[in-house]
Amino acid sequence: MSERHPSAPSDTSPPGGERRRLHGGKPVGIALLGCGTVGGGVLTLLARERERLAARVGAPLEVRRVLVRDPKKVRVEACDVRWVTTDVDAVMSDPEVELVVEVMGGEGLAGDLVERALRAGKSVVTANKALLAARGKQLFALAAEHRADLGFEAAVGGGIPIIRALRDQLAGDRVERLFGILNGTSNFVLTQMTELGQGFAEALADAQARGYAEADPTLDVGGFDAAHKLLVLATLAFGAEVTEGEIAIEGIRELEAADIEHARRLGYVVKHLVVGRDHGDAIELRVHPTLIPRSSVLANVSGVLNAVKIEGAALGPCVLSGRGAGDLPTAVSVVADVIDVSRAIVAGAPGLVTRSVAIARRPLRAAGLTEVRWYLRFPVADRPGVIAKLAAALGDAGVSIEQIEQGPPPAEGDAPVDVVIVTRTAREDAIRRALAAIELGAIEGQPFVRRAPRALRIEEP
Amino acid sequence: MSERHPSAPSDTSPPGGERRRLHGGKPVGIALLGCGTVGGGVLTLLARERERLAARVGAPLEVRRVLVRDPKKVRVEACDVRWVTTDVDAVMSDPEVELVVEVMGGEGLAGDLVERALRAGKSVVTANKALLAARGKQLFALAAEHRADLGFEAAVGGGIPIIRALRDQLAGDRVERLFGILNGTSNFVLTQMTELGQGFAEALADAQARGYAEADPTLDVGGFDAAHKLLVLATLAFGAEVTEGEIAIEGIRELEAADIEHARRLGYVVKHLVVGRDHGDAIELRVHPTLIPRSSVLANVSGVLNAVKIEGAALGPCVLSGRGAGDLPTAVSVVADVIDVSRAIVAGAPGLVTRSVAIARRPLRAAGLTEVRWYLRFPVADRPGVIAKLAAALGDAGVSIEQIEQGPPPAEGDAPVDVVIVTRTAREDAIRRALAAIELGAIEGQPFVRRAPRALRIEEP
Repeated sequence: MSERHPSAPSDTSPPGGERRRLHGGKPVGIALLGCGTVGGGVLTLLARERERLAARVGAPLEVRRVLVRDPKKVRVEACDVRWVTTDVDAVMSDPEVELVVEVMGGEGLAGDLVERALRAGKSVVTANKALLAARGKQLFALAAEHRADLGFEAAVGGGIPIIRALRDQLAGDRVERLFGILNGTSNFVLTQMTELGQGFAEALADAQARGYAEADPTLDVGGFDAAHKLLVLATLAFGAEVTEGEIAIEGIRELEAADIEHARRLGYVVKHLVVGRDHGDAIELRVHPTLIPRSSVLANVSGVLNAVKIEGAALGPCVLSGRGAGDLPTAVSVVADVIDVSRAIVAGAPGLVTRSVAIARRPLRAAGLTEVRWYLRFPVADRPGVIAKLAAALGDAGVSIEQIEQGPPPAEGDAPVDVVIVTRTAREDAIRRALAAIELGAIEGQPFVRRAPRALRIEEP
Repeated sequence: MSERHPSAPSDTSPPGGERRRLHGGKPVGIALLGCGTVGGGVLTLLARERERLAARVGAPLEVRRVLVRDPKKVRVEACDVRWVTTDVDAVMSDPEVELVVEVMGGEGLAGDLVERALRAGKSVVTANKALLAARGKQLFALAAEHRADLGFEAAVGGGIPIIRALRDQLAGDRVERLFGILNGTSNFVLTQMTELGQGFAEALADAQARGYAEADPTLDVGGFDAAHKLLVLATLAFGAEVTEGEIAIEGIRELEAADIEHARRLGYVVKHLVVGRDHGDAIELRVHPTLIPRSSVLANVSGVLNAVKIEGAALGPCVLSGRGAGDLPTAVSVVADVIDVSRAIVAGAPGLVTRSVAIARRPLRAAGLTEVRWYLRFPVADRPGVIAKLAAALGDAGVSIEQIEQGPPPAEGDAPVDVVIVTRTAREDAIRRALAAIELGAIEGQPFVRRAPRALRIEEP
């Protein structure tokens, strides 16, 4: 891996100047932390595109160490056994290792190793959104302090170049709104529910059978994975440092086939969205299932695909979509960062690429102040006066109604019937107030809401 | 514009090292060539985001010169009159100008000025796809020779970060296929024809009335603008140096409402596409109106929007869409390049960002060897035996038929009726051979094809 690339373009002579061997003509030494499927993809791409990458970087890329827990478990053909080690110190104290690629996952050990690498002045590329969501601010500060780069394109949206778009393309603009479908499992489940009429449990079982969902799917269908990604995007889009506990996170577990069907009849598709908005004085960050118009470009992002729509003040709308997960797409993003960061190292300017991400505390707008249109579904007793009660409670809370629909009378005498209400734009606290009043409401001494109402936000991305 | 930004992140001390003033603490001097609407947008963004950009770059950006033909015509509020000059030498000989932004357009003078700037070791950012299509190879070589950057994100797809995606995100992968809707005028005209049933002339007049089409629309509706953009993308996607004269370019002028309608009935939408494919031994580049399935993500890119779908060997599909033109989106792309290139200058590594674009002669696959499915429309005499003749001619040329449809009998006795044939995948030379035979064909001594057949390619992007 250490031969010189004789015709590297960065090695051409400046006119009238002396011939300069960039980086002393040395290769860029790389260590991998972890060697699972993404790590294997990275090693495969580094081997397959070796000459092109050397030309692009201006020096060869040389893998020197691959840190693993158990060398016997390494199953990657492109991994030379001589690289494999279990010795952390051997990796961190190797002065030839200038770039550390973290593909082991998890927050604890991975975070400690990334910190240690940055403190040693080594640049880091990571695919770990949970780590960035939990410790991003400290890691960016460490990278800046030690003149190291911290690349994380692979952490959000797999192979989609969303980090580059926000960090580089929009560097001279301001992001006003951001919408994302960032969890492939949830999107697959919702697509199955929409296209095949499956219920949540059935669609989830299908996703698990295909390997799109974990045995414990909480991180995905609970909305937490999408929230981690939103927090990472928020640092770039809004320069905002926000932690997971500060934002309301709703997953898709409670969605019923009836909601998907009502939404469809009203012209909407239900998607699990992350939403970010900059109001100037405060930002708004939300993660929840959402009704979006069927004609929206995000409505057509199906299955395990991911997509992000950014709206820049000057740029206008820009949509990026592609494979949000998968070993090879993620590996492509890791290698893209490896190339950028290596070029900066070779040019003698480590830290150039990613260092100046400005992060500050920015106030979050309280959830209650959020204003959107709402879809409300009330499973109610089928009797006269119910709609008047619902409308009155909403009116009392200051919520205007755009549309009311009542399902057909129930087949069995006393089964609940769905009343669906679409509101005009309303503040969330007003909606919550109305829902509380409605759940306590009664007609002739009998509560008329039979099961918990369902409230979903409507967005027009 | 020349005050120092005291807290620029790039200015922090390395641990244990001496404090280093990057770029000697100087601002990065910028000259604009041209000051029309895009130039005005660039100056506006540079002024509006001054502090953020200085923090991002590590030094302030200082506009020093704005070269124009006629200073009286400068109508840009953000343009300081003291910058305005008509003196080329004053711009080129100013040692403080390290970055030249070309937003004047045209190939001749603009090309000469860009060359001169590169020879003087100044980096260049340009929005000029016609210039790159005509003289790209020489300009990239000059930039490499003189250790300068040549940024051109704004040249293709307006505000969509397609250049970054190809250059950086896919640097470790190989592009297998590329599809693009890259001309907003053509896409607007086709959208009007599809959605409102307008004919070409009416839709074009509509586009002209709204300012989406020039008085002479040849460059746009003739397909040439899209072809220029494809040639620029081909350098990045396939490392290929190709000139305009080498590829077949078809515009949308000859499309009729009947084609749009037949396509719709068959489940397709007609889009003006650029297509690129890497066959390993050769590449394929085409520009033409194309039938694509209505469910394709590109089918839903309407009006003046642009979109590109890239398929990487490892990355899989990735779609980027947004505003393909417009002063502000284009200015955002220019400023993004200005930032990247300025950071490299400040880090003492000019040329780092864009220099290593590898360009080589790569053989083009001959158009006749292209293999796609075809939509063929034959306005024929309404008499028995015609379909047999059409099918026989196609069969003789080795073309298999997937579907044949004949329109209803004509209202007037002798008017032609459309026969539409969808073929299986067929080589273009076979299709041409069949069409030639059919145009010469006769039944009982009478030619049965009444007007020139229409042949459109079908793609499934």
